[in-house]
Amino acid sequence: MNVDPPNEFGLIDLIRERCTIEREDVKLGIGDDAALLAVPSGQWLAVSTDTLVAGVHFPEHTSAGDIGWKALAVNLSDLAAMGATPAWATLALTLPRADAAWATAFADGFAALAREFKLALVGGDTTRGPLTITVTVHGFIPPGAAVFRRGARPGDGIYVTGTLGDAAAGLFCLGERAHAAGGAAERLIERLNRPTPRVAQGLLLRGRANACIDVSDGLVADLGHICAASSVGAQIELASLPASSALLAAFDISMRARFQLQGGDDYELCFTAPEDGASMLLEDLARSGCGATRIGRLTAGTGVCVLDASGRQIELERGGWEHFA
Amino acid sequence: MNVDPPNEFGLIDLIRERCTIEREDVKLGIGDDAALLAVPSGQWLAVSTDTLVAGVHFPEHTSAGDIGWKALAVNLSDLAAMGATPAWATLALTLPRADAAWATAFADGFAALAREFKLALVGGDTTRGPLTITVTVHGFIPPGAAVFRRGARPGDGIYVTGTLGDAAAGLFCLGERAHAAGGAAERLIERLNRPTPRVAQGLLLRGRANACIDVSDGLVADLGHICAASSVGAQIELASLPASSALLAAFDISMRARFQLQGGDDYELCFTAPEDGASMLLEDLARSGCGATRIGRLTAGTGVCVLDASGRQIELERGGWEHFA
Repeated sequence: MNVDPPNEFGLIDLIRERCTIEREDVKLGIGDDAALLAVPSGQWLAVSTDTLVAGVHFPEHTSAGDIGWKALAVNLSDLAAMGATPAWATLALTLPRADAAWATAFADGFAALAREFKLALVGGDTTRGPLTITVTVHGFIPPGAAVFRRGARPGDGIYVTGTLGDAAAGLFCLGERAHAAGGAAERLIERLNRPTPRVAQGLLLRGRANACIDVSDGLVADLGHICAASSVGAQIELASLPASSALLAAFDISMRARFQLQGGDDYELCFTAPEDGASMLLEDLARSGCGATRIGRLTAGTGVCVLDASGRQIELERGGWEHFA
Repeated sequence: MNVDPPNEFGLIDLIRERCTIEREDVKLGIGDDAALLAVPSGQWLAVSTDTLVAGVHFPEHTSAGDIGWKALAVNLSDLAAMGATPAWATLALTLPRADAAWATAFADGFAALAREFKLALVGGDTTRGPLTITVTVHGFIPPGAAVFRRGARPGDGIYVTGTLGDAAAGLFCLGERAHAAGGAAERLIERLNRPTPRVAQGLLLRGRANACIDVSDGLVADLGHICAASSVGAQIELASLPASSALLAAFDISMRARFQLQGGDDYELCFTAPEDGASMLLEDLARSGCGATRIGRLTAGTGVCVLDASGRQIELERGGWEHFA
């Protein structure tokens, strides 16, 4: 391991070496002024970009490997929400200093997730400054196959993949009151630091879901984006929200509700689909390794309404995570 | 003008409104989880990403409009150096606070340059944190048409577009000794803050230049990248380096040499081409609105050697700008 690269160019080489994946469609990778890439004929390009800022999107003491993983995961999650197949990424890494050990661990975290999806790192920039990571991901999708936020219809069922609330609970466990979670804390923190983008599940939604979004800012906030884009309302039942055994073991219903409704960073897919065909879709999702749960239905109204076990509407303090709120 | 967007989503809308350009190949722009784009059949995609950090890549007090322009310009310059035609960009904007007036001016600076190249802003992310801007640009290039760093050959002439040294001189003028530059300072600072990416010139180099790079870190450093990638040496003559009238008016030969050889941020193209056909290439470049000047030739050696007017080799202190140096 090279632990003493003196400058920007050393860091680029270090990251490139650890993130190399051979792909036929990468005609020129890192090392010139631009990458040259071949989009398969008959496919559209899906592009998304997301930034993580230290102290805002992850705690300052998060490990470099976790940051590398998460910086890619949050971007792949956006491709998943469109139903796109990941292909390439660029990485803009701003670091306080040229720290080779940190960059090595970061690159290894990034590469571990990239390999799962045969995603190639094709370009990047390393700069000096406060720790900030911007990844831009590229994927493919056949024309007409994408699932938008705007396609939801009244009467659709509302579904989420996996479980909700773990990441927010994990963040809580990192705080002063970590003891509250007992032995479950480690699993919850793992979900916060190493989210799993639901790429395979996004592909299964093509042509079958009417709308989809990934849960990055919190269920109520993100489902709210579907409602706004589709001019529909949503009614969800608190008791139906899927929770992990770690979350159930560690927190009471009131804390769980807060994490599940308003906590961000789960990177599950929230989608809406007509009742017709839903059961087969759920079976296919379960077989994919990550099932989905019905949590409510869309209405002709506006906004997101949450009902408790007695059917009473729950008042929410704020809709979710906003970076400038 | 909306001067009071309360949050992240307001900023995104504000920027989108000011940067909208209609393009047939943008199938879905800003507003969903990913943009959907159609690369023209028979073209490769060229992708490049560059970050600007406040206080590192531009002085803290640089105007928002200049930052917006420059964040796009430095990226377009990378496409130019490959010979690619710009098409789309994504913008990751990290801001200390949701400042609508700042974002408006930034977007206007960005859009002013984007319009020149019919470039569409197709996606982005706004986050809270220390001022940092990452732009990822996308362009098109026919297979086989790109100009690489690695194609240079001994015997090639070395050329640069436009003039060198203005941006570094402009940065100098912003410092304590601004009075040194007299009335030329304004023109030099304008070159620092609003560089012109040489896109049209890059297109003319396709199939005619053997190698190309844009001068972002300084002539000696960037020409050094061509030498390293191509396993050649370079010999350039200080007296032949093109200088603007502003630079000539404001600085003596010793200061000019420093700015021209080692100052970054000019975003001119440095390319190498066989003597055969060079005169016609230079004529075409001159007609494009930005001519090029021969500054030396490639050798079978290694590294960049600078000769003074008497043919003596000049010793250089450091090769150019390195972010972690």
